[in-house]
Amino acid sequence: MKINILRMLLLITGFGLFALSAFAQQIYPDWQIGYHKTETVQPTRWYKSVVPGAVQLDVMNAENYKQPWWYGENVSQFDWMEDFWFTYKTTFKRPELKNGERFFFFSKGIDYHFKIILNGKILLEQEGMFTYVDVDLTDALNDNNELRVVIFPVPNLGFENKVETARKNARESAKPAVSYGWDWHPRLVTRGIWDETYLTIREPIRLNDVSVSYTLNDELTKAIIKIDVSGKQVEGRSYRWTLKDPDGKLVVEKQGMLSFDVSSIDAVLLSPKLWQPNGYGDPFLYTSDFVLLDKNNGELEHSTSKTGFRRIRLIANEKAWDDNGTFPATSGFPPSCLEVNNRRIFAKGTNWVHPEIFVGTISPERYREQLVLAKNANFNLLRVWGGGVVNKESFFELCDELGLLIWQEFPLACNVYPDKPAYLKVLEQEAVSIVKRVKKHACLALWSGGNELFWGGMTEQSYPLRLLNSVCYKIDPQTPFINSSPFIGVGHGHYLFYDNIIGKEVFQWMAEARRTAYTEFGVPSISNIEVLKSFIPEGEHFPPKEGTAWSVHHGFGAWRKSSWTEMETYRKYFGEPESLEELVTNSQLLQSEGLKFIYEEARRQKPYCSMALNWCFQEPWPTAANNSLINWPNNIKPAYYQVAKACRPVLASVRLQKFEWHEGEDFSFDLFLLNDSYIQTEKVRITVVLQYDGKEIELMTWDCPGAEPFKNVQGPTMYSCLPRMESNLFTISVKVDGHPEYESVYKLLYSGENIKK
Amino acid sequence: MKINILRMLLLITGFGLFALSAFAQQIYPDWQIGYHKTETVQPTRWYKSVVPGAVQLDVMNAENYKQPWWYGENVSQFDWMEDFWFTYKTTFKRPELKNGERFFFFSKGIDYHFKIILNGKILLEQEGMFTYVDVDLTDALNDNNELRVVIFPVPNLGFENKVETARKNARESAKPAVSYGWDWHPRLVTRGIWDETYLTIREPIRLNDVSVSYTLNDELTKAIIKIDVSGKQVEGRSYRWTLKDPDGKLVVEKQGMLSFDVSSIDAVLLSPKLWQPNGYGDPFLYTSDFVLLDKNNGELEHSTSKTGFRRIRLIANEKAWDDNGTFPATSGFPPSCLEVNNRRIFAKGTNWVHPEIFVGTISPERYREQLVLAKNANFNLLRVWGGGVVNKESFFELCDELGLLIWQEFPLACNVYPDKPAYLKVLEQEAVSIVKRVKKHACLALWSGGNELFWGGMTEQSYPLRLLNSVCYKIDPQTPFINSSPFIGVGHGHYLFYDNIIGKEVFQWMAEARRTAYTEFGVPSISNIEVLKSFIPEGEHFPPKEGTAWSVHHGFGAWRKSSWTEMETYRKYFGEPESLEELVTNSQLLQSEGLKFIYEEARRQKPYCSMALNWCFQEPWPTAANNSLINWPNNIKPAYYQVAKACRPVLASVRLQKFEWHEGEDFSFDLFLLNDSYIQTEKVRITVVLQYDGKEIELMTWDCPGAEPFKNVQGPTMYSCLPRMESNLFTISVKVDGHPEYESVYKLLYSGENIKK
Repeated sequence: MKINILRMLLLITGFGLFALSAFAQQIYPDWQIGYHKTETVQPTRWYKSVVPGAVQLDVMNAENYKQPWWYGENVSQFDWMEDFWFTYKTTFKRPELKNGERFFFFSKGIDYHFKIILNGKILLEQEGMFTYVDVDLTDALNDNNELRVVIFPVPNLGFENKVETARKNARESAKPAVSYGWDWHPRLVTRGIWDETYLTIREPIRLNDVSVSYTLNDELTKAIIKIDVSGKQVEGRSYRWTLKDPDGKLVVEKQGMLSFDVSSIDAVLLSPKLWQPNGYGDPFLYTSDFVLLDKNNGELEHSTSKTGFRRIRLIANEKAWDDNGTFPATSGFPPSCLEVNNRRIFAKGTNWVHPEIFVGTISPERYREQLVLAKNANFNLLRVWGGGVVNKESFFELCDELGLLIWQEFPLACNVYPDKPAYLKVLEQEAVSIVKRVKKHACLALWSGGNELFWGGMTEQSYPLRLLNSVCYKIDPQTPFINSSPFIGVGHGHYLFYDNIIGKEVFQWMAEARRTAYTEFGVPSISNIEVLKSFIPEGEHFPPKEGTAWSVHHGFGAWRKSSWTEMETYRKYFGEPESLEELVTNSQLLQSEGLKFIYEEARRQKPYCSMALNWCFQEPWPTAANNSLINWPNNIKPAYYQVAKACRPVLASVRLQKFEWHEGEDFSFDLFLLNDSYIQTEKVRITVVLQYDGKEIELMTWDCPGAEPFKNVQGPTMYSCLPRMESNLFTISVKVDGHPEYESVYKLLYSGENIKK
Repeated sequence: MKINILRMLLLITGFGLFALSAFAQQIYPDWQIGYHKTETVQPTRWYKSVVPGAVQLDVMNAENYKQPWWYGENVSQFDWMEDFWFTYKTTFKRPELKNGERFFFFSKGIDYHFKIILNGKILLEQEGMFTYVDVDLTDALNDNNELRVVIFPVPNLGFENKVETARKNARESAKPAVSYGWDWHPRLVTRGIWDETYLTIREPIRLNDVSVSYTLNDELTKAIIKIDVSGKQVEGRSYRWTLKDPDGKLVVEKQGMLSFDVSSIDAVLLSPKLWQPNGYGDPFLYTSDFVLLDKNNGELEHSTSKTGFRRIRLIANEKAWDDNGTFPATSGFPPSCLEVNNRRIFAKGTNWVHPEIFVGTISPERYREQLVLAKNANFNLLRVWGGGVVNKESFFELCDELGLLIWQEFPLACNVYPDKPAYLKVLEQEAVSIVKRVKKHACLALWSGGNELFWGGMTEQSYPLRLLNSVCYKIDPQTPFINSSPFIGVGHGHYLFYDNIIGKEVFQWMAEARRTAYTEFGVPSISNIEVLKSFIPEGEHFPPKEGTAWSVHHGFGAWRKSSWTEMETYRKYFGEPESLEELVTNSQLLQSEGLKFIYEEARRQKPYCSMALNWCFQEPWPTAANNSLINWPNNIKPAYYQVAKACRPVLASVRLQKFEWHEGEDFSFDLFLLNDSYIQTEKVRITVVLQYDGKEIELMTWDCPGAEPFKNVQGPTMYSCLPRMESNLFTISVKVDGHPEYESVYKLLYSGENIKK
């Protein structure tokens, strides 16, 4: 959010002071907020509002709600607000407008259905939080002005508030469904002005948009650049456009005259330094500068943007056909392998949910701290899940910078969105806005209609999905589009270390799975102790009990009855816990070892398999237990570090058969060297060691011939017999001579007569 | 083709006479044709041309080619023409144009890339045979005029002429690939004016287009009708629109004034009589009349069209999921079940190829004779295969009338069509033209990108397919769209009675298959004797030999080496044939019994399976052997009658294990009553009888409880032991008390020591 000197003045004066438009084009007024039962009735009280923010937070601060709002069961304080109207208002004097200047209200996002009213006159009604609002106020200005943003009650089709059905309230709207309640998100339907919002004076001669796009030749040695310029009264004016390489060196320059108010300029860049995703090279970004010139070649207006040159395709997985030419012959699974710059990559990553329930409060710094963690986890792809919001611009800018590919879903999730014209109209408006905004980012790898839409009954024939494919093809054909995740061949789940329904644990169900991509999977754990203590009242800490803050924060009954503490699974392996510390430690061990197995197994299944994305990276409020790797607000769980290791470009990996072992059991495993990089690794000696009770036994040695670029090597299978141990945990340690960065460690459970349960 | 009185005058005068424009708006001039090596050089000779027709036929008639062209190896006479230019020309005097009248050249189709030149001035250049040509000649008219249509050489990327690769010549064009050679089509790349073409005087006040569309409510009890009218100078004029029901009774009338030159009129029809596909009711058609009125309420212009009210969806097949909620969970197969008017149907039908190689010669009568046969075969769906043309209007009008659903593919087949802008531009133009033209027809059930596109390497991400989906969604969202056939879950093939590679015959491979739809399958046979004799020179009739007319007409090496006479399969079952008659009879028996088995087995697999469409219905020239049911030109093969029986709405059916049997063998089969209708059938006694050597043995009796609407009933399984027989064929006859229309007969082969081979 940009705050300039004028904001300070506004805070003092209460009314605007608009003389200095040349260097103060964005004016951030003070806002007040009030709520009302119907559209026409006036609020009885007006409170100070923080913009961007959320209606809930303003009322909470004004009315002395219990805080923090996420403590205990405090979240229920907001329940009454869903059916109320909220009105933002601000007042200001008539701005001084010279020579054709215009006065605009601009907002990057208002959630969800609203009217913009100046001095009692409705200037805009809009449904949809992702379409920028840009309203010319000039002709409705008085000497003293009152601008209102009136927010409608939340979309609500009248379903129950149960987690399984609550989201259906949103199924005829383009409002992200998550705030209606999920297994890791309370029902808390946020609303209000959620992104940068200001008043502004616009020059009569101005740039509206400068958009840089390009196509690369097949060899990626030449970029044909197109600069689309639109503006007011820019026809016939001169411009200078420059492109600087990642080192700041000028590489292309064009000068000329704009023939029309909407013009297109072509340029060519030879041998671009390609933008590469994390793990495959550097995410090189070029800087484009477009300057509109006055008659003396002075700068009238200026537009700067970043461009990363890369080509991304979604191509067929190798071997993804279910027959060998025998008849009746069908087709292979749809493509789910990302190719970046003519090379297949193995997509390692995670499902990103927004880091705050109140998305209006997310700052670039908040995004950065978590995105840096994602990069450090060796991730290259984040699936931005369709239940949540399309993030603010700073999110995409950071992903461009960090080399994190983005799989962006539209705001559809776990519903049967209808073929109704009213819904489709809003969806189209929102989709067009989203695609136009995001398509310029080098990080954008994939559009997706939304989450698990085929599970409920939507199909390839559903109008919303055909519409979205059509919008994406028209505006951004170079980015692949999929209808939904999962599509056929791709898998979601499982979300448990041990599933008592099928009687299998993660080591079994994942080894048996055969999917072209694993785009959601999870192993839950109980949250970090300091996180638990931050929101669970002292007396409820231990043992976890239903009906307490543990339940409100998804410890019980969040998905299945057992979710997400999974106490029965805990007891199966570790017996009854004696302390919160013991409970958390062991629960987190299950998550660590479980997730590590899934990532490594998905990589072992390459090239048939092309992706592994866990559910999920973080969480938008503090949970008692969850599949996340990071507790809210930014508290790293141990599994994060194990996942980061499992995602190293090259590593030695063993395929274990199960977690819990007994004395004398046949102990066997398969050994691999996994290589997702395009480096040919050298020959290495790999040694597998069993460590227990302070002892170490060398189980096997493999003279690995080295892995070819992007290829795994399978080594020998080891058979052994487990000795008697005293402690309940033992370790399989894989050592690699000369390459400690390839080494891996697996912790397993020993369960002998001497070990308590 | 419409020929009016003026045409006669033109034939006499050689030049037009255009005074009587009020009742003679379409003028069909005489055309001449010539060929030339380059675009600029003039033809040395001009020949009379038949329009519509083909350049090949005009030259053949003028230059005394060997005829009939399809006899023996005569087809090779046309080979040289591919790289030549052809020019059509006609001459006429300046028409008398009164009060703003305009003079147009209009054509419904010119194949493939051409220029329209009047008096040396290029008025249009177009690539694409499916976009109507409508050129205003007025401003370029002289006193004496010469109009030329210059046809470019055929698209040719320079591949070999082998059947497997020849089609690739067309892979960057929207020209149907079939004429480059297929396993049942010689290489004969047709070109020229192929659909109705005329000169015409247009009034200054005129209707350009009147298009009737509608949406039905979910209960199908109410149609909201929209009449889109566009014209010249029609703004402010009065109109009268009427809708008459199938009995000619007026049911809706609207009068009013057109507000603009492009207007939209709404109307409502309650309780429409629904258009139903063959086998599910009557294909009711309403008649819409739009009359543009003059100031005295007299008729200025008139537009009539037919509308059938129905709702068609492509919905998920029942049980089309590969898991039962176990994780990692994926998605079900994409929908391939047609739902018409809120009821699932079982789609029985065939693959339609155009009935003449020279599509310009196809008349409505030619379409009708074959479409009536399709209806009489109990078919309800024709897949109009993407290798061929999109048919002329009369085809769709007849399908509307006959209740035959149409699966229309775009002209893409068995190629990797590129993501190149030049190709995409032509494809979009052609697709828009096709969709706008065809969407009004009640018979239209499904759009498809084309044939077997995923087999070569195209995917859901290919630009041509995303473009086509997008065009269809924009212009005709109510009709489902699929990318290609087969898509995953759907099967194409097999095309053999016995496959020596896998060692299985049709009774085995089809019983083992499990596809959601069988949209191509075939069993070949040798053609009818009179057909063979019509094109194979006397001395080559028997035995069939490679390198003769048998080869040219696809008897050998057409697909596999053995295609399509399949002599080895013949010998396996029947030994060496002693005469052409014996060969044809037995070959056609294999086709009959093979196809019957496939259709009935696909129906037994309902509801998992939803479609059975054989490859193919007819053929565009006489083949020596082929999978077709109808020989060219319209000669019914015995398999047609067996297929027609297998497609009856209700029938008793047995699942046989194989074709060839021996004395004493365990003979068993499963008995079914198949019901694709929505009738609840009554209880019936079904008796299965073995007939051989003039004897009859009753094998079993089943008191069938009757089949529920759209449900099959499986009866008992019979086990028996085969007696010794004298003749090499025996019959399983299924008798149904009181319902002879349900009865079935299967012919099987007996192979004892006493039977010669």
